Amino acid sequence: MQRPAPLALLFDVFGTVVDWRSGIATEVAKAFEANGVGADSTAFADAWRAQYQPAMQRIRSGSRGYVPLDLLHRENLDIVLDEFGLSDRFDAAQREALNHAWEKLPPWPDAVAGLAALRRNLIVATCSNGSIALMARLAKFAGLSWDAILGAEIANDYKPSPRVYLRSCEALGVPPRQVMMVAAHNDDLRAARECGLMTAFVRRPLERGAGQTVDLEPTSNWDIVADDFLELSEHERFSATAS
Amino acid sequence: MQRPAPLALLFDVFGTVVDWRSGIATEVAKAFEANGVGADSTAFADAWRAQYQPAMQRIRSGSRGYVPLDLLHRENLDIVLDEFGLSDRFDAAQREALNHAWEKLPPWPDAVAGLAALRRNLIVATCSNGSIALMARLAKFAGLSWDAILGAEIANDYKPSPRVYLRSCEALGVPPRQVMMVAAHNDDLRAARECGLMTAFVRRPLERGAGQTVDLEPTSNWDIVADDFLELSEHERFSATAS
Repeated sequence: MQRPAPLALLFDVFGTVVDWRSGIATEVAKAFEANGVGADSTAFADAWRAQYQPAMQRIRSGSRGYVPLDLLHRENLDIVLDEFGLSDRFDAAQREALNHAWEKLPPWPDAVAGLAALRRNLIVATCSNGSIALMARLAKFAGLSWDAILGAEIANDYKPSPRVYLRSCEALGVPPRQVMMVAAHNDDLRAARECGLMTAFVRRPLERGAGQTVDLEPTSNWDIVADDFLELSEHERFSATAS
Repeated sequence: MQRPAPLALLFDVFGTVVDWRSGIATEVAKAFEANGVGADSTAFADAWRAQYQPAMQRIRSGSRGYVPLDLLHRENLDIVLDEFGLSDRFDAAQREALNHAWEKLPPWPDAVAGLAALRRNLIVATCSNGSIALMARLAKFAGLSWDAILGAEIANDYKPSPRVYLRSCEALGVPPRQVMMVAAHNDDLRAARECGLMTAFVRRPLERGAGQTVDLEPTSNWDIVADDFLELSEHERFSATAS
């Protein structure tokens, strides 16, 4: 028996809505050029992102209180500059400026139009690990519009902790069973499903570049699988809401 | 010495952005007609709103924990139906449906265009006592777009408690001195100024109908005074940000 059409959609953002890898590599390349550094900016982007899960894990496990992702990115930047032997090439102000790279990520080509189409009939909000400040600035940069910015900061925790999904549904005043999580990552959807949400997997096979090996395909029977947000917006599951 | 141009604007919503009195009266009139009730729907709207401050005061004072405004509105509806001798005319489902009237308030005529103009160069967010769910649905109904929904729910408190303004600035990652509060209510601006925010007073002389006696004029030297959001958006104070 098919479940009812969702009343609200929650979106993962990094990788699902925006291309963080290209965006970070572009900003890093600019900073490298300005400082006369010859290192590989894409490798640097990957290394910066590699620090993402361990940093959040300390908060999810309770060994550190909640701090916004902007601060974790800033701390991780120090680690990665050190890894690349570039610690003496960037002062505090330059590091702070480079940290804003996370607010300047390009949307995937279908994202702006797809989200706009979905927003006509549904509540469409972020459920990202990014802070409110980061999500608001990123949306402005990428030309995205959200009905609300939810996720980590209103839950004081990080995905995939159940609290982040549940608090986001609560903030919308919609029961989890009438909310659909949209992500390009199977782990994110698995955690959302365990909280009772519906799930939509959107393929982003270039998130990690041409050699991507993970999340190329759905690993479970998610409610919807789509190649992009336009295909998602045209899914029959949403026509019930519109009529 | 003039202060720098703001980086972000926080908006009061009920009365400043939307015309709650006409909106509630319209929805109440529909409910009265459906139930064959002949009472004055505008008087009912005023009576419903009159319960607003006392209900929040119990939370501001700490005698009750934070609950979202939707619940306060629902409880206040019971009180007002009783005042009007209508307790036996509305069952629980009808009361719940009528409570959604607060999500169906018309914007003032200049609000949509004025906010869109301001959003081009500034972060523009709500700082309302309404919940995230209420603000998101109201924005959809009224055709408004916000960069973020802040205010009471992220602070677990109600304006004019300082925490609501300060938490909203913190969520944007902008110091209070670079944020401007926009409201049609002098009390709201006074509280925001005490938290270090800049202030803009927008006249809404019809918020309480033709006989309005309060908040017709600014009662202090607010940084900006404007007749509507279009005048606000064209203020020289914002041209510095744009250039």
